[in-house]
Amino acid sequence: MRARDVNSGGAKSDDDGYAALAAGIAAGERPALARAITLIESTRADHRARAEALLAEVMGRTGHSLRLGVSGVPGVGKSTFIEAFGLMLTGQGHRVAVLAVDPSSRRTGGSILGDKTRMEELSRDPNAFIRPSPTGGSLGGVARRTREAMLLCEAAGFDVIIVETVGVGQSETAVADMVDLFLLLLLPSGGDELQGIKKGIVELADLVVVNKADGELAPAASRAAAEYQSALRMLRPLSEAWQVPVLRCSSLEKRGMTEIWEAALRFRDLLGPQGLAEKRGGQARAWMWSAVEDSLATAFRRHPAVAARLPELEAKVAAGEVPATLAAEELLRLFRKG
Amino acid sequence: MRARDVNSGGAKSDDDGYAALAAGIAAGERPALARAITLIESTRADHRARAEALLAEVMGRTGHSLRLGVSGVPGVGKSTFIEAFGLMLTGQGHRVAVLAVDPSSRRTGGSILGDKTRMEELSRDPNAFIRPSPTGGSLGGVARRTREAMLLCEAAGFDVIIVETVGVGQSETAVADMVDLFLLLLLPSGGDELQGIKKGIVELADLVVVNKADGELAPAASRAAAEYQSALRMLRPLSEAWQVPVLRCSSLEKRGMTEIWEAALRFRDLLGPQGLAEKRGGQARAWMWSAVEDSLATAFRRHPAVAARLPELEAKVAAGEVPATLAAEELLRLFRKG
Repeated sequence: MRARDVNSGGAKSDDDGYAALAAGIAAGERPALARAITLIESTRADHRARAEALLAEVMGRTGHSLRLGVSGVPGVGKSTFIEAFGLMLTGQGHRVAVLAVDPSSRRTGGSILGDKTRMEELSRDPNAFIRPSPTGGSLGGVARRTREAMLLCEAAGFDVIIVETVGVGQSETAVADMVDLFLLLLLPSGGDELQGIKKGIVELADLVVVNKADGELAPAASRAAAEYQSALRMLRPLSEAWQVPVLRCSSLEKRGMTEIWEAALRFRDLLGPQGLAEKRGGQARAWMWSAVEDSLATAFRRHPAVAARLPELEAKVAAGEVPATLAAEELLRLFRKG
Repeated sequence: MRARDVNSGGAKSDDDGYAALAAGIAAGERPALARAITLIESTRADHRARAEALLAEVMGRTGHSLRLGVSGVPGVGKSTFIEAFGLMLTGQGHRVAVLAVDPSSRRTGGSILGDKTRMEELSRDPNAFIRPSPTGGSLGGVARRTREAMLLCEAAGFDVIIVETVGVGQSETAVADMVDLFLLLLLPSGGDELQGIKKGIVELADLVVVNKADGELAPAASRAAAEYQSALRMLRPLSEAWQVPVLRCSSLEKRGMTEIWEAALRFRDLLGPQGLAEKRGGQARAWMWSAVEDSLATAFRRHPAVAARLPELEAKVAAGEVPATLAAEELLRLFRKG
């Protein structure tokens, strides 16, 4: 049953009124949650209208969770970590929702979390809810749907939301912009694997965890953790109230999980209710404006006169033949005319 | 005379036709360059029209310089460094233009470079041109005018453009987005001063230089350089063709300057003509789009119905009472109506 709940949304969502879904979510029913997420993922206009009504309905029940982003290059063991970490949390009585931001994901799998076998035990846990990344579309669209899914999960009473990202490209920034705490998973290989990580990602991390600190890799993990710690001390403002901790864990042997959770709670306590509200408020405002700007930019690009002139002009700008501001002003004139 | 050239623009710009300015710039005349920059800094519509014509006129002569960004916290000695570095370059026969991005600068001083005494020797050098930061306005506006000033300096035959930034806030990113190479100046204090530097700035650096490597600070500078080097090795992709070098210099004793210039040339050679063209092309495209988006966002914010609704809605979004996408969609509906 439960495994099916997760995927049953697609088939049923059309039958649900948003009020019924809101009631199911308020009751913490995972099938209703799954269908609601399918609804907000839909691009059909009538679905979108119901999705908006549903979000407005549940908004008062949102915000009561710790939002945790988890990133790391492929092979670092994100899914194994999230399963071990999630099971520790459900074992403590938490209700854990796992979402993902993976712009490369396709309905035909491809999404890390689409592959259920990756978190078999957690996906069978009645206090866990696992949802693959929304499929297709731009990173902005995927992030938007994940943010809305996060709100629905909170409304359904999940008090820990884990948002996984694939660890390549811009998705980390998108995830860091929607969570309270951004956790970066690293391999015990002393920096080599960072070649897969985009510039600036390490500096996004509020918490760094060296995974696979077990067996033969244990000594390497200790070395790597010490090296990362001193490197971060060097490159991070010493005056910052929060000095990014570098922890070790073994997802395989399920060790180090409570220490990571305690560090996350320390981080939240340091922020305080006021700081957390300000951080989330800033994220929400930025999210609103990026939605506005995306929509304006789309209308701009689709404007016939702009679309007709854009390719040649953009090429000339790139070639250094036309100053960027002149090109912008010409395009804006075309846009205003029509 | 020369010192006055720099400031004489304001008085004269109104008298110049853009063709006369273009000719003066082509002849490498600094007074014409100074007046042209004053013209592109003006917000008056008729000035703006002439500025656009002027930029279009000189565009063919731009691009033949090495564009170097210099950042570092107040007190690191940016001006002293730029003076020593610039004099070394003019001594080698280069023509050096120094611009600045400082959103806090005011015509009444406040701009680091506005204070001429800070670069007295360089400002007297016939092969140097020093221009304070454009005053007032948003960072975007200041950056736009500095980018255009950079193009004018190139058209006037300056082959090294140094863009200084104040080392706080977002101005570093704006500068990194307009130069070929971003140089970060640090103090020989082993990380402490990074508290003044925004997250991610260190990772923007293509070249790190520990300044004040002289006298009693020499040993500390060596230690700091070694520590920064290992920290950067740790946090920077090892696979990157360019491993950010950490050099030392003494601006006071004018030592280490040629090594820094050689490192900058190595970086440019590594990019190659194709890589440099791609980097600049990407910067110009991004610059064009940010100009478009700024203008669209301004029109949006000024739209009466939007402006009337925005404060309450944005507050509710920040408070988590209204989902960001719903607020965005409501505002967009208001905008499209009017």
